[in-house]
Amino acid sequence: MKLYGYFRSSAAYRVRIALNLKGLHADQAFRHLRRGEQRSPDYLPLNPQGLVPALVLEDGSALTQSLAIIEYLDETHPQPRLVPEDAVQRARVRAFAQAIACEIHAVQNLKVLGRLRALGHGDEVVNGWAHDVIAEGLAACEALLAEEAGPFCFGSAPTLADLALVPQLYNARRFKVALDAMPRLLAAEAACQALPAFIEAAPERQPDAE
Amino acid sequence: MKLYGYFRSSAAYRVRIALNLKGLHADQAFRHLRRGEQRSPDYLPLNPQGLVPALVLEDGSALTQSLAIIEYLDETHPQPRLVPEDAVQRARVRAFAQAIACEIHAVQNLKVLGRLRALGHGDEVVNGWAHDVIAEGLAACEALLAEEAGPFCFGSAPTLADLALVPQLYNARRFKVALDAMPRLLAAEAACQALPAFIEAAPERQPDAE
Repeated sequence: MKLYGYFRSSAAYRVRIALNLKGLHADQAFRHLRRGEQRSPDYLPLNPQGLVPALVLEDGSALTQSLAIIEYLDETHPQPRLVPEDAVQRARVRAFAQAIACEIHAVQNLKVLGRLRALGHGDEVVNGWAHDVIAEGLAACEALLAEEAGPFCFGSAPTLADLALVPQLYNARRFKVALDAMPRLLAAEAACQALPAFIEAAPERQPDAE
Repeated sequence: MKLYGYFRSSAAYRVRIALNLKGLHADQAFRHLRRGEQRSPDYLPLNPQGLVPALVLEDGSALTQSLAIIEYLDETHPQPRLVPEDAVQRARVRAFAQAIACEIHAVQNLKVLGRLRALGHGDEVVNGWAHDVIAEGLAACEALLAEEAGPFCFGSAPTLADLALVPQLYNARRFKVALDAMPRLLAAEAACQALPAFIEAAPERQPDAE
């Protein structure tokens, strides 16, 4: 398999953690988002959205969208399970991951911030937008876990939810979001960051890190 | 079951189609998004994100995020299947739905457009933002289906992908997006709109339609 990513992409980071947890190897290829390499003619056939990640399988099929890729990996390599067995718990784990992927990350990623810059906004407004989207979104995520047992987001082992959370907290710190009011999210992150699968997937550990 | 929605919410519309396709009944409750009813103190415990939909189950559990709700319905009521059996096809169907839910809808929903207005932008900029996000996003979706058999997004029956597509095309027309260059998406929509499950889920057919 070959994973196209970028060290600081939250979505690629999620997939790296999944591969590590499952002990799977994928060759890594990099598309530098700030240089626009994700829109190059050799890459768009793999991901017509012009986004990372893309995971190219042995037979050449290209999969896109990090949450869909992780569910594929979970279905084809079920150990350890990243989506729980119980239907209601599955729905809760997926909803938490989607609350981050759709309502936080997709609204503050490089592409959206570029749209704001194109409207004439400078650093203060652009960074303020990202800050507010992340702060409000993570506050809702903290509430989503109010009745869930820890130490991970949903119980005693990492799930798809944790794979979404850890990269989003990395992003939260880049935009100086105060995290004191989110003890449950921080506890889940701490549980994750004790595991080599998470440590080795960190942006600064990637070959393309700047 | 009880579905909290809003007639024009794309995300609630997706869930209505799923319920109809599976022949399931849910009582409907409405939260008027423009009046902010999705942030009322009686609703936030059901959906801490302050978004519709929420699906409350018989035992009182509340599920959020439309794609997670639809997968829950698909797993608990498997006929007709909305996510295919083959792992690669499952990943493609989910990626298509997420390309719409995350990269299009979440970036042009009422909440994001409200953020733009709060920055001082008027109708022209706000509607232009929604137009561009939808036009670019749907062009990528057209490309994602280039090698998929029709008439639906993925083959001979509707899937989660079609449940995301039809509400997004409804939204595209509200923002006057030209759809001529997207024949494959329009063909899938036409196949869907021949089915009562889609027709009856349309915004203008809902009790809260204005």
